[in-house]
Amino acid sequence: MPVPPVIAAYRGEVVERTPVWFMRQAGRSLPEYRALRERYSFAEVVHEPELAAEVTLQPVRRLGVDAAILFSDIVTPVQAVVEGIHIRPDRGPVIEQPVRTKDDLARLRPLDPETDLAYVLETVRLVRAALAPEVALIGFAGAPFTVASYLVEGGKSSDYRHTKTLMHTQPDVWEDLLDRLAGIALATLTAQVAAGAQAVQLFDSWVGVLSEADYRRFVAPASRRVLEGLAGLGVPRVHFGVGAGHLLEAMAEAGADVVGVDWRTPLDVARRRLGPAVAVQGNLDPTTVFAPPDVLEARVGGVLAANGGRPGHVFNLGWGVLPDTDPAALRMVVDVVHAHRLAPS
Amino acid sequence: MPVPPVIAAYRGEVVERTPVWFMRQAGRSLPEYRALRERYSFAEVVHEPELAAEVTLQPVRRLGVDAAILFSDIVTPVQAVVEGIHIRPDRGPVIEQPVRTKDDLARLRPLDPETDLAYVLETVRLVRAALAPEVALIGFAGAPFTVASYLVEGGKSSDYRHTKTLMHTQPDVWEDLLDRLAGIALATLTAQVAAGAQAVQLFDSWVGVLSEADYRRFVAPASRRVLEGLAGLGVPRVHFGVGAGHLLEAMAEAGADVVGVDWRTPLDVARRRLGPAVAVQGNLDPTTVFAPPDVLEARVGGVLAANGGRPGHVFNLGWGVLPDTDPAALRMVVDVVHAHRLAPS
Repeated sequence: MPVPPVIAAYRGEVVERTPVWFMRQAGRSLPEYRALRERYSFAEVVHEPELAAEVTLQPVRRLGVDAAILFSDIVTPVQAVVEGIHIRPDRGPVIEQPVRTKDDLARLRPLDPETDLAYVLETVRLVRAALAPEVALIGFAGAPFTVASYLVEGGKSSDYRHTKTLMHTQPDVWEDLLDRLAGIALATLTAQVAAGAQAVQLFDSWVGVLSEADYRRFVAPASRRVLEGLAGLGVPRVHFGVGAGHLLEAMAEAGADVVGVDWRTPLDVARRRLGPAVAVQGNLDPTTVFAPPDVLEARVGGVLAANGGRPGHVFNLGWGVLPDTDPAALRMVVDVVHAHRLAPS
Repeated sequence: MPVPPVIAAYRGEVVERTPVWFMRQAGRSLPEYRALRERYSFAEVVHEPELAAEVTLQPVRRLGVDAAILFSDIVTPVQAVVEGIHIRPDRGPVIEQPVRTKDDLARLRPLDPETDLAYVLETVRLVRAALAPEVALIGFAGAPFTVASYLVEGGKSSDYRHTKTLMHTQPDVWEDLLDRLAGIALATLTAQVAAGAQAVQLFDSWVGVLSEADYRRFVAPASRRVLEGLAGLGVPRVHFGVGAGHLLEAMAEAGADVVGVDWRTPLDVARRRLGPAVAVQGNLDPTTVFAPPDVLEARVGGVLAANGGRPGHVFNLGWGVLPDTDPAALRMVVDVVHAHRLAPS
C-alpha cells in the first residue's frame, strides 16, 4: 500500500505536491455538520461512532484534504475517568470541581481505552475503513499541560493563574497530575494507532503562556513521556501549541517528529531554528480565509514560499478553522496548495 | 531637580538600584481602590480629576514604587470623540456600532485634548503636584492597532477576525482609521507631557496577534507617527504589547526608547536582540505573586539576573497586575528589587 502523502511529508520524504489538512476542519464551518447537529448534541456526535465517523469524513469529501483527523474533544479521554466535566457551547470544557490538591488527584484513575473509549476506537476503525488509501487518518490527544489547565482552572482561562500557582506552590502535586495525564494521553494515542490512526497530533494548545524555562521544567518531562512512549509504533508524532513560537525547539526536543507552527513564526524561521530533521506543519493565519481571493491566494503562496520547497512540510492553518469560515475558501486553499508543484512527477 | 530613577533608567543611565513600577498597579488589587469604588463608578473615577489622581497615587503610597501611571482607560481618548463606547465591568470596552466601513470613519473626528480631555490633563497636573520629585509620572495611550481592534471588533476579541479582514479587504480604510487613531494618541500624549507626564507608554496590548510582516506593513507606520511625533518633547517613549516577543525589534524600530517585554522572552534574550541603545521594562510573570515568598523572591532575582546589571532596565511585571493580587506580595517585589544593588552608592 502506498504511503499517504501526509505521512510521507511528516517523515521528511520528498513528495510531488504539498499535502494539506486543516485543524478543526470538521465542525461548525461545514453546513452538513450544522445540519447533523440540529438532530444530535455535540456529546451524542462524539459518543456515537457512526456519527463521529461521518463528521470526521465530511471535510475530506468537501474540501479534498489529504488527511482526516478524528472528530472528538481534547478532554474526551479525561472526561471518561473524571466525573463532572462538560462541554458547553461557546465556552468549551467546564469542570465542576477543579483539581487543585493532592486529594483531588485520586479522582484521576488510569484510563483503559478499550473499555473507557471504545466508541472512540470504533470511530477510528470506521473512518479508516471508509477513507481512500491516499488519505491519512490522524489521531489526537490533549497534551498534559493543556488538559491540566482545564482541570485546574475549571475551564478555559485568560491568565492560567491557578495552573501556574499549583506548579509553584505544590510542585509534587503538579508533577503527579501531569504524570497521570501523560498516562491517559499515551494510552489513548496508543489505542488510536492500534485502531488505525497513521499519525498522531499532541495538542498543547495553551502551553504558549509559559516561558521556555518553565516549559522545560514543569511540562516537557510529561510531554516527553507521551511522545517517547509512542516511538515504537512507527507513526509520525506531531506536536503543536498556539502562540508557542518561543517554544518550538523545546517542543521538538520533547520528542516530536513534526512541530506545528502558528502564523506568528514564518516557516523559514521555524525551519532554520528546528533544523532539517524536524518536519513542520502550518501556518496560514486562520483569519486569512475572510480576505479577498487574490489576497488569500497570495498568502497561501507566501507560506509555500517561506518553506521554500524543503521536504517535510504539511500545509495547515496556524490554528483551527474559525466557525464562520466559508468552506469554499478552504477548498480554494487546498486547490492552490495542490497546484503548486514541488518536484517533477 | 534630580532626574527620577525611572527616567534615568529609561534613558539608559547608570542607576544605583533598579527602579520598579507595575502595569495596572492602581485598581482592583488595592483595598483603598475598592473602597472608593463602592461610592463611585469607574467612569466617575476616570472623569473626576480628584478621584483619578487619588487612585493614581494609591499604589505609590502603599507599594513604594518609583513611578505613578495615570489612572485612565485605553479607550478614554477615543471615547471622547466617538459616540457609544462603554466600559463594562469584566468585559472591558464595548462599542455599540463597530467601525468597519469608509462611512464609519466620519465618526472619528480629531481630538482636542484641552477641551475633550480636560479632566485627564487636570488629573496629570494634580498627580505631578502631589508626587515626590524622585517618583516619576508616566502618561499613556492605546496604540492605533489596539484601539482600532476594539472599534472594529466591537470589544475585546479572541481572534481579531474583523480587524484583520478590514486590513486585507479595505486597506485604504484601515490605513485611514489607523492614521486618525495615531492623531488621537499623539494629541493626548503630547498634552499629557505638557501637563507634567515625564515619560509615556504606548500600549499596543493586542498587537502580538499579528505576524511581524503584517505588523510592519499595517501597523508600524501609524505607531511610528505617534512615537516620532513625541520625539521633540524630551520624554522617554515606552512601547509594549503582551505576547509580542516576535515583534520586539519591529516595535523598537517604530520609535521606542524602551520596549516592554512580557515574561515569555527572557531579558537576556531581549537585550541581545534589541541592542544597548534600547532600554527594557519587565518582566515578571504576573501570576508569580501567588507563589510562596521564597519562590517569588527567587523569580524576582531571576529577572534581575537575566538583565545582568546592564543599564537601561526598569523592573515591572510582564503584563498587568491581576485583580486578586495581594498588595503585600507586590510590596515584597519592590523591596527585593530595591535591595538589589547595581552600583556602589
